[in-house]
Amino acid sequence: MTQRIAVIPGDGIGLEVTWAARQVLEAVTIKHKIDLVYDEFDWSCQRYAAAGEMMPADAIERLRPYDAILLGAVGWPGVPDHVSLWGLLIPIRRAFRQYVNLRPIRVFEGVRSPLRDAEPGAVDFVVIRENVEGEYSEIGGRLNRGFPDEFAVQEAVFTRPGVTRIARFAFELAGTRGSYVTSATKSNGIVHTLPFWDEVVAGVAADFPEVRTDSEHIDALAAKLVLDPGRFDVIVASNLFGDILSDLAAAVAGSIGIAPSANLDPTRTYPSMFEPVHGSAPDIAGHGVANPIGAVWSAALMLEHLGHAAAAADVMAAIEESLMAPDTRTRDLGGTGDTASVVSSLVALLG
Amino acid sequence: MTQRIAVIPGDGIGLEVTWAARQVLEAVTIKHKIDLVYDEFDWSCQRYAAAGEMMPADAIERLRPYDAILLGAVGWPGVPDHVSLWGLLIPIRRAFRQYVNLRPIRVFEGVRSPLRDAEPGAVDFVVIRENVEGEYSEIGGRLNRGFPDEFAVQEAVFTRPGVTRIARFAFELAGTRGSYVTSATKSNGIVHTLPFWDEVVAGVAADFPEVRTDSEHIDALAAKLVLDPGRFDVIVASNLFGDILSDLAAAVAGSIGIAPSANLDPTRTYPSMFEPVHGSAPDIAGHGVANPIGAVWSAALMLEHLGHAAAAADVMAAIEESLMAPDTRTRDLGGTGDTASVVSSLVALLG
Ligand SMILES: CC(C)[C@H](C(=O)O)[C@@H](O)C(=O)O
Ligand SMILES: CC(C)[C@H](C(=O)O)[C@@H](O)C(=O)O
Repeated sequence: MTQRIAVIPGDGIGLEVTWAARQVLEAVTIKHKIDLVYDEFDWSCQRYAAAGEMMPADAIERLRPYDAILLGAVGWPGVPDHVSLWGLLIPIRRAFRQYVNLRPIRVFEGVRSPLRDAEPGAVDFVVIRENVEGEYSEIGGRLNRGFPDEFAVQEAVFTRPGVTRIARFAFELAGTRGSYVTSATKSNGIVHTLPFWDEVVAGVAADFPEVRTDSEHIDALAAKLVLDPGRFDVIVASNLFGDILSDLAAAVAGSIGIAPSANLDPTRTYPSMFEPVHGSAPDIAGHGVANPIGAVWSAALMLEHLGHAAAAADVMAAIEESLMAPDTRTRDLGGTGDTASVVSSLVALLG
Repeated sequence: MTQRIAVIPGDGIGLEVTWAARQVLEAVTIKHKIDLVYDEFDWSCQRYAAAGEMMPADAIERLRPYDAILLGAVGWPGVPDHVSLWGLLIPIRRAFRQYVNLRPIRVFEGVRSPLRDAEPGAVDFVVIRENVEGEYSEIGGRLNRGFPDEFAVQEAVFTRPGVTRIARFAFELAGTRGSYVTSATKSNGIVHTLPFWDEVVAGVAADFPEVRTDSEHIDALAAKLVLDPGRFDVIVASNLFGDILSDLAAAVAGSIGIAPSANLDPTRTYPSMFEPVHGSAPDIAGHGVANPIGAVWSAALMLEHLGHAAAAADVMAAIEESLMAPDTRTRDLGGTGDTASVVSSLVALLG
């Protein structure tokens, strides 16, 4: 069975790390006799500069038939975020109802956590971020623009179906892991949406009596991620809280450069999208030094989503192995390798 | 000149740490010939259990004539947050237009930061949190309660005067310190209120050409607090972002137990309120082991606000000194001291 992948390298180091992920996919799919075919799309800030749009008007329609989307990074100096992100990344997340943003966090051997006590292996959790509603709603605006009495409002929107499905995903996932869910809230300060979140999450939790659960205010939870990251298994959080916690957690694990993410439509009605957490990094773009691990790990998540668990596990084993030696780690991890040498090492390990 | 202090010990360890702060204030005001008088109010969850309200209906009126308010902690198991916090803490912040929540962060010698690289002295910054508007607005509600199509909305509200005054406070403060302001945003995802925040902060920044400034998305900023906390001087943030960053920063500094806060009305129309960042800690309440430093440091901020800078500096010097020895640190800091022994040491140092 052939599975079709839409590849959007995007901007900056997005191109380099997507190339890297493709090499690794090539090696592992040969080994496992998996039939993936790829189409590449040049949708990016560069395209915006030339054509006035990040992606064509029929982009969503064109992506729809694919089994998955592999994305590098989008964004470039001079192109405002509301163009680059809201013209590509966020419309894809929403049009394909990728309501789960899954972000695994691990402290690997060879990667130095900024935390004294974070032993390799001891930190291993997943942030499940709600990805299509919540604080990122477009509802809002400004009044009295430019005047001293100007103000802006923005509405966070939490729906029962939206919170139920993300909570259910988190509890199901926890059932396959450490059977422990931590829900991020701030119901003591944000008194309409987050008490509702708590209530719906508690309702879902009742259906999973074998999963331990607790609820932490986002301020205390952020502190605990630093004081005791080893305690977590699955963290479920709203769009904004999940964004903050997953970046923070990636820092705790030692590097944003290795952090992957999956934007999932668990109903499989639409293609899911896989992308590293890092951005396009204009400062190092084109130098061949970008850390490809975030993109490669994202590709492993894609393989898993496409039903190739053994291949995904092989990629993860190769990542673990290559992170151990300085010459197969990039400079951001204190190594001496570059993008190409890390790729060679991964490909060799998968050979 | 006599200055009058309203003392609200509140709940749990709030009582113990307020007692501690009072002892230290006693010692330092004698030394500096400062005339403070205190009235204590038993407003608390205990009062709620007995009288059905956290504080009397005329509480705000009664507090108004004071020069400052010293608060311990509020909250107790069984009393919901919307009663304990929204029945005491938040109404005081709002009625007295304490629009600045100031939270200094320092890594002290003797306090072990969870970060490998956080050297004592190298981390010293202040989080300036907007304290009366933003994401904590009460505007919002639910529709279709209990039905499958239920949803909740909550409106964040940012006003030009509100953002201007908090930004101005931050830039003025930075002028007396390291001349560097970092503004927390998320304008790439939250597209109405935070672009407005950015615009107003940039306008204020233009009036302070001698202060360096940058703007960071909250996700990246949380990561940087862990990866490079030494780079910050003053961080200015909305109500929610400031809450998250200041708790996270307190963890980075090694303990929530030492973190202080000042809820300020810089116009001095109303009394300002000083409280440790920690809560009422029911698990250790009454055991005499609570870390009093958060409350004592808050008292030092109060002295400064009341015009007694030399006395405040003396208290800070005593805190620094006592944190160095294990027997004058509490157990949460790896010491062998308890609340009373830390107080004795502070009082002796101020003698
Ligand atoms: C208790 C809660 C509402 C409060 C807040 O977030 O304002 C607390 O976390 C704080 O930081 O003072
Ligand atoms: C770029 C931004 C809008 C985006 C988000 O917050 O969703 C990014 O930070 C991410 O986490 O994918």
